[in-house]
Amino acid sequence: MKLSLSDTETLATNALMAAGAAPHQAKPTARALVMAEAMGLASHGLTRVAMYAAHLRHDRVDGQAKPKIIKQSAGAVLIDAADGFAYPACDLAATRAIKLAEFAGTALAAVTNSHHFGAAGLLLHQVALAGRVGIALGNSPAAMPFAGGKRAILGTNPIAAVFPRYVKGVMVDPVVIDLSLSEVARGKIMVAAKKGEKIPLGWALDEKGHPTNDAAAAMQGSMLPFGAATGGVKGAVLALMIELLVTSLTGAHFGAEADSFFQDHGNKPKIAQMILVINPLALAGNTVYAERNETLLNAILGDGNVRLPGVRRFELLRQAEQDGIEIPDSLIEQIRNLAKV
Amino acid sequence: MKLSLSDTETLATNALMAAGAAPHQAKPTARALVMAEAMGLASHGLTRVAMYAAHLRHDRVDGQAKPKIIKQSAGAVLIDAADGFAYPACDLAATRAIKLAEFAGTALAAVTNSHHFGAAGLLLHQVALAGRVGIALGNSPAAMPFAGGKRAILGTNPIAAVFPRYVKGVMVDPVVIDLSLSEVARGKIMVAAKKGEKIPLGWALDEKGHPTNDAAAAMQGSMLPFGAATGGVKGAVLALMIELLVTSLTGAHFGAEADSFFQDHGNKPKIAQMILVINPLALAGNTVYAERNETLLNAILGDGNVRLPGVRRFELLRQAEQDGIEIPDSLIEQIRNLAKV
Repeated sequence: MKLSLSDTETLATNALMAAGAAPHQAKPTARALVMAEAMGLASHGLTRVAMYAAHLRHDRVDGQAKPKIIKQSAGAVLIDAADGFAYPACDLAATRAIKLAEFAGTALAAVTNSHHFGAAGLLLHQVALAGRVGIALGNSPAAMPFAGGKRAILGTNPIAAVFPRYVKGVMVDPVVIDLSLSEVARGKIMVAAKKGEKIPLGWALDEKGHPTNDAAAAMQGSMLPFGAATGGVKGAVLALMIELLVTSLTGAHFGAEADSFFQDHGNKPKIAQMILVINPLALAGNTVYAERNETLLNAILGDGNVRLPGVRRFELLRQAEQDGIEIPDSLIEQIRNLAKV
Repeated sequence: MKLSLSDTETLATNALMAAGAAPHQAKPTARALVMAEAMGLASHGLTRVAMYAAHLRHDRVDGQAKPKIIKQSAGAVLIDAADGFAYPACDLAATRAIKLAEFAGTALAAVTNSHHFGAAGLLLHQVALAGRVGIALGNSPAAMPFAGGKRAILGTNPIAAVFPRYVKGVMVDPVVIDLSLSEVARGKIMVAAKKGEKIPLGWALDEKGHPTNDAAAAMQGSMLPFGAATGGVKGAVLALMIELLVTSLTGAHFGAEADSFFQDHGNKPKIAQMILVINPLALAGNTVYAERNETLLNAILGDGNVRLPGVRRFELLRQAEQDGIEIPDSLIEQIRNLAKV
């Protein structure tokens, strides 16, 4: 069934409020999930409403929490999400980092005691709209070993970046880079396990830390960092970098201290996110920025079968704004039922 | 033959000065090469002296250049390397970013019109000694296609990070993360080509942009971003992120605009580097920082056959400080001859 963005947002907001979230927590969270759904990022979209509602009911997230600034200097701010959802705290982080970078040139906003932050790139839209370059990082419940290790210690630790674009002086859709550091998304292994299919070696380890091509065994084990299939350590090393950045500087939990998001019961995850904002005006300026950006992007577009990262999600968003989003009836039904409780 | 670090540094400095570098360019450059050599990073060590001397002689680098600050705000600084070597400009960048981050909490120093910056992690040693967390990025002459592309547009674009460590309140060797974004170093393909050995598919493309296992054909083509062997785009996307960060914000050349460092003749590369410094005191503070850092690192060390990144280079450095560095006689001879010219 097709629903408008605003109807979808109301539906999701009501479901979260019925599970105990105050409007200041429910609304930005619902908005982020609807935006992900509209942009074709379904794994961070409306299927998460039920999970979030369960986390509210089982005290894994505090629906009344108010994110607050704990510490601030000219170019850095530490925000306590206070065990609420990640989105209101990350919205505050982005807003504050944009503001600080106006004068400081660069600003880092870190969020601690936080929860699942979905598609990292979405946090950066307001950064791009402000004409700033942004980077977002976060950790997640442990899913991967370090290079040479046997058990899950590191999260798949997403990293995203946004680069605003100007064509003939007019701002157009930004480039959005958005990836996590596992070889494949866990969902791919889950699908193979359900179908009873083998997976390639290099995707995962079994429970004992041995390489496996058995999808069901992989679901009991850990994911491998990307590049590990060919013996590389680079994915693992980057995941370690992100884990240290977001936890050591904020005091947040490691992925290994946070229970899986896929369980209704469990601890408050207390994981962390970071947003870095860079103001082009503080470096070479906007004219140089726009020229360099477009020159490189056009060179890339001119080379073979290439698509710029993030372009498709804005095409889908515009389509959804016009025509609504196609949502499976069963999913709408599930969210409606959650709102009725 | 074994030489002391200081004798080696004098030797390299003299070679660079004989080729036309002023002491303020020659000394920090020689120091960085000797440090890389002592830390076991030979590909960024003394073999580069001859290359750098050739670049001085053929006007690819200005041995008299004085790096200068072009723009500065509370947390950002843009430095013009003025077509000199990267090291004096990057030293200034690190020093300045450390200083700015004292008050701003975070500071970004960007270097434009620069040259080869060697092992990125080395630039961050002074950041760790100041008790700060650091990240270094840079682009390099084009060597890899973007995902789906056929020709080299992106550099292998190194990224490094440093995390100071404290054990019972005492600063010990930092964790140093240091990688480039190709599947393998070009040197590996070069060695296979010389031996007439095949390389695995996924390392490189030939001149026409087709996957190849022929090392000689690969040397005429381009390297693949890491993770590409299994069809992944993540290495390419990260390389694009670094290329855009360091060029668009500084006005520097793209990798595709810089001639290979392995040629004596060619243009002034005018590539760029960035150093981000984060002051733990501006976020959760040093006590929290040290506890989180050590807890995660010990968990990783407790899991199988694992070594922390960067540990080995400090062991080798201490050994070299005590016993000197073993350098092939032919290499010493080459550098001595350069100094005599």
